[in-house]
Formats: sequence, C-alpha cells, structure tokens
Amino acid sequence: MPEIRHNIATGEWVIIAKERAKRPEDFKPEANIDIENLPPYKDTCPFCIGNEDKTPPEVFKITDDTARWKVRVVPNKFYALVDTEELNIQPFKYSGLKKSIPGFGDHEVIIESPFHNTTLALLDEKSIFDVLFTYRHRHNVLIKDRRIKLVTIFKNHGPDAGTSLEHPHSQLIATPLVPPNVRSRIEEAMRFYDTEGQCVFCYIIEEELKNNERVIFENESFIAIVPYAAFSPFHIWILPKRHMALFGRITDSELENLANCLKDVLLRLYKGLNNPDYNLVIRTSPFAICDVDYYHWYISIIPRITKTAGFELGSGMFINTSIPEESADFLKNIKI
Amino acid sequence: MPEIRHNIATGEWVIIAKERAKRPEDFKPEANIDIENLPPYKDTCPFCIGNEDKTPPEVFKITDDTARWKVRVVPNKFYALVDTEELNIQPFKYSGLKKSIPGFGDHEVIIESPFHNTTLALLDEKSIFDVLFTYRHRHNVLIKDRRIKLVTIFKNHGPDAGTSLEHPHSQLIATPLVPPNVRSRIEEAMRFYDTEGQCVFCYIIEEELKNNERVIFENESFIAIVPYAAFSPFHIWILPKRHMALFGRITDSELENLANCLKDVLLRLYKGLNNPDYNLVIRTSPFAICDVDYYHWYISIIPRITKTAGFELGSGMFINTSIPEESADFLKNIKI
Repeated sequence: MPEIRHNIATGEWVIIAKERAKRPEDFKPEANIDIENLPPYKDTCPFCIGNEDKTPPEVFKITDDTARWKVRVVPNKFYALVDTEELNIQPFKYSGLKKSIPGFGDHEVIIESPFHNTTLALLDEKSIFDVLFTYRHRHNVLIKDRRIKLVTIFKNHGPDAGTSLEHPHSQLIATPLVPPNVRSRIEEAMRFYDTEGQCVFCYIIEEELKNNERVIFENESFIAIVPYAAFSPFHIWILPKRHMALFGRITDSELENLANCLKDVLLRLYKGLNNPDYNLVIRTSPFAICDVDYYHWYISIIPRITKTAGFELGSGMFINTSIPEESADFLKNIKI
Repeated sequence: MPEIRHNIATGEWVIIAKERAKRPEDFKPEANIDIENLPPYKDTCPFCIGNEDKTPPEVFKITDDTARWKVRVVPNKFYALVDTEELNIQPFKYSGLKKSIPGFGDHEVIIESPFHNTTLALLDEKSIFDVLFTYRHRHNVLIKDRRIKLVTIFKNHGPDAGTSLEHPHSQLIATPLVPPNVRSRIEEAMRFYDTEGQCVFCYIIEEELKNNERVIFENESFIAIVPYAAFSPFHIWILPKRHMALFGRITDSELENLANCLKDVLLRLYKGLNNPDYNLVIRTSPFAICDVDYYHWYISIIPRITKTAGFELGSGMFINTSIPEESADFLKNIKI
C-alpha cells in the first residue's frame, strides 16, 4: 500500500508510491551535459575568462594572487527585475483587477569559475568557499536596501533544470515583496514553534541524527538529509546545525563547513546519478524577520530526474516514486 | 521596466519580464508527438480498443450504438493511491517526525478515445462531451465516500507534461485529505469574499468581459482567458459563468458548453503552437465546502513551453517571459 507522508516543516503531504517505486540505481538519467569533454574556453560564452566585455560590468569579484578573477558577479543581461535608485514603490498603488507594481529589485549572475568545463561538484573546497562567500556578500549588500524584502539565491544546472548555459553559474533575485509561498512556509514553522516550543528545523536535525536513516553527510556545522517526506527522488536538504533564520548570518568557519558539505553531496549526485540536472535554492528568511527563533534557513537540492505533472500542479501534493530511506542509503554508499 | 502582477484570486505574484518577452509566435515548440502520423491502433498500447485485457477491469464506460466503448475508465495500474473498503483512516495516527498515513484514495485513468492517433483537441464536440460527462460521473461517485476529501482531475499531454503514453487519456486522483496548497487558495478566495462581498472569480469574469483584453473565447456558460497574472506563456483559465464551487454540480447543458469551449481553446493551442505538451487541471472545491459562495471551480491549462527553475521552486513566484494580453491576442487570431 502506498504511504502519504507529512513534512512537518512545510506542511506538505507527499505520496510515497511504494509499489511504483524504482530502485535508486534505476533513476540514473542520460547526462545532458558531458562536462569532461567541454573545452575550458569557448569564445561565444559570455561567462568565460577573456569575454568579460560580453556581460554588463561586474558588481563584485574574487581574484587570485595574479589578479585574475575566480568568481565574478554581473547583472543578469536578461533581467527579471531591475535596480533603480530613485524608485519608492511602497505603498503599492493599484486598482481593480490590475494589481501590478513596477518590477523593481535585482537580478544577478554569479559566475562560479573562469573555466567553461567544470561544475560546482568538481571545484575544490576553497573555490566552493569563494562561491558561497560571494553569495553571502551579495545577499548582505542587497538587504541593506530596505525596499528589498527577500533575496533568493539559486542555481539551475542543466537544461531540465531551466538553463541552456553550460558555464557554471548561479543566480540571485532580490524581490520587493515576500511571496505568499514563502510566507506560508514561515507561518507553518511559526505554528510549530508556538505549539511545540522549539524550531521545527532544529527538531528535524536532532531526530534525523538520532535515527540516522536518511542522513547522507554530517560535519561540525551542517547535515545533509533526504527529507522524510522528500517530494521527488534524491531531493536533499542541507541544514546548518546552529539555529539561524537568515542565510546572511553564516560565519566564515560555517562557510568552510558548508563548502565541505556541498562538495560531498554534489559529488555524490555527479558520480552516482551521472551528473543529473538539478536546481539548488537557499531558503532563507525575509530580512524583516531575520533573527526569529521559529525559522531556520536551509538549502534544498532537487535533481530534475522526474517530471512534475497535472496532479502536482493541481493539488500541490507530490508523488514520489522512490523511497527516501533507500535514496539516502544509495547516496551514502557512492564512492567519491 | 518589468512589471510584477498580482493574481487577486490566488494571491500569487508573477514577474512579467517585458524586456525579455518574446513575441507569441516565437514560443512555437517542436512537436513532441506527431499525432497525425501515428497508427490508429498499436498492439502494445494498453488503451487501444481490443487490448482491454492489458488494463484492470473498467469501472465505467460509455458505449456507442454498436456497444463499442467510446470512453473507458480503468484503475491506474501504476497507482499512487489505492481504494480499500474496510479502511478507516481518520483520525490520523502518527508520532514524532514520522507523520504518515496509509495511501488510501483512488487513482483512475480516463481513456478518451478508442483510437491511438487522436487527442482531445481533435475529437468532435460530442466525444469531448462524453469525456467531460465521465469526469463528472466519476467525481460524483467518488465523493459519496466520505473518507475522500478532494477529487483532482487532470490531463498530462506529452512528455514535457509528464506522460510517455501517446494514447489520449486523462487521470483522476481522489485524496483522503485537502493539501495545504488547495487550502490556501481557498482561504485567499474566502478573504476576498469577506472583504469585498463577492466571489473573486465572479468578479474576474465580469471585469475580463468588460475590458476584453484577455478573453480568448466565450459562450453561454463559459469564458476562456489568459489570466492577468498568467504565470507562463499561454497559461489559460476556463471559468463557468454560473457560480459553482464544486465541479460535480455542472449541468448537462453546461457540459455541452464546456465541450464547445474546450474544443475551441485546445484547437487554438494545437494549431497555433504546434501541438504543445500541456497540463490541464480542474481546480474544484473539497467536497466538505461544496456549495460555498466564496469559491468557484475552474480549469487551468498550462502549456509546457518554458521550464520552471530554481527561482520558481524557491520563491513560489514565477517569471513569465510573455505578455498576457499579447498571448491572448495571438490565440484569438489563430484560424481554426
């Protein structure tokens, strides 16, 4: 019989289709990008070193001893939102059906390496640290503008995850409002805190470490798990052990540990699942509630191995055709 | 400058990326399935006429004068939820992290035609009526079981919409709970009703007919629009003009008008966008609130032309790279 699992942090229900479940190794997709056979430099790629004139001027970079950049942040040329100094957008003004506000905000690309033929999973820990350091830096610069309510940092890896660009990169979008989806996750966490007297994410970390059925990786500051109610095969959460609502509060030593954790987890996916396309997103708190006891930032990694369809769109429930404990076990046992 | 639009019915915000926006005709994807060159019968297809022994026994069918079936409903062999007579699942019993309930419910396939080489858009109105009649019939049978809280009827058309089966079919999943996503949409509609004194969907119908910028089709009982805050290119809503919360309350003459409306809209997509993959879902009310004044069922059609990525997953906000008024205009002007 299938099982319907409840995610106590988000309130979501997931159908674990046990009878339909495939073995973890049966999910291995065909690789969409053969990274090892890409050239290190492509003259048409706007993100390759030497092609800096193909992007808008950079807003931040990290350089090596020879002044060559290692990580570079540029405004997204195909921006969804724009930064503008003079605009005061609040209170929102609208009437009737047409509730619309100007597309104020920020949209940046974080170029993770000068080289075309690599990916986050293949970078060394120090280089991953540089990328994460850049995330924190840009996050903390942007939230100083009080018109910005939330900074979403995310990565689309491969065409099934929504990008056609091969060069390793992530993105950041700063929005002038808190979307209802984010608000409702936070409310769910608040309800748990109010009735149980503790952060639901701290509770999950404690329980996952205790029963150890779904933990993939652990170090001093982070754990990586396949959530109990994982909504798709190999769905992964990375949680900081120290309670923090806002990603921007991460310390340098925690950034080092996060680089260590991310390297391990992404390499397991890369080797065990044949470099799958995936999305990665940092689910942080809106700045207005940056130090609350009831919310806890985390990273969600969603390999795009299966497709969401009409049922998921209609009900918001997911059908997972893998068993979370088996997925965790499979990932844990990959030789990296 | 981009624009951020608010959907007053769902509370969702959508970024309309005007500067990135493509012209409607530039979205035309390569067709994934070339329906006109499929055979009418495939001996390996479990849904083709003559292959009835490849599916579980049917629970409902509509036959023609010669007793041959035209529409057929069978339990999904790869079920997500199962029907079982004796199970009493409420109250939910669970403890600690592991909130899980048995996978009770129902999962059915509605085979829309005996023929392999067709699709809903190409059927005649009478045959579409038969499919919709079947939806209503199964919906109304299932909600008699008071353990069922919601019936989700949906259609996945093409591989990008999550199906590999070519034979025209839709699905139905009956769940023993109301997912939080559905609950929050209903709460949003309730808030509008409580503050504005009318159903938000009735209000949208009235406003859309008045300004006529996004209406694709209208008949006596239905209108089809590209919503003001459409979350992706050619996203379509079909709404009944008469206020009804529950899909199962649709009358025979309304079913005829819905067949007429659906035929028109799906044919526009088929011809204008080269038979795109799409999801269709009937967003109806949970049975427990089947006759409320504040909710209104409707059909959402989502062509799978663009991909959702990390930002959408992380924030619940969408970036639409088309302008809803232009999409509506394009669809309206297709010769069908």
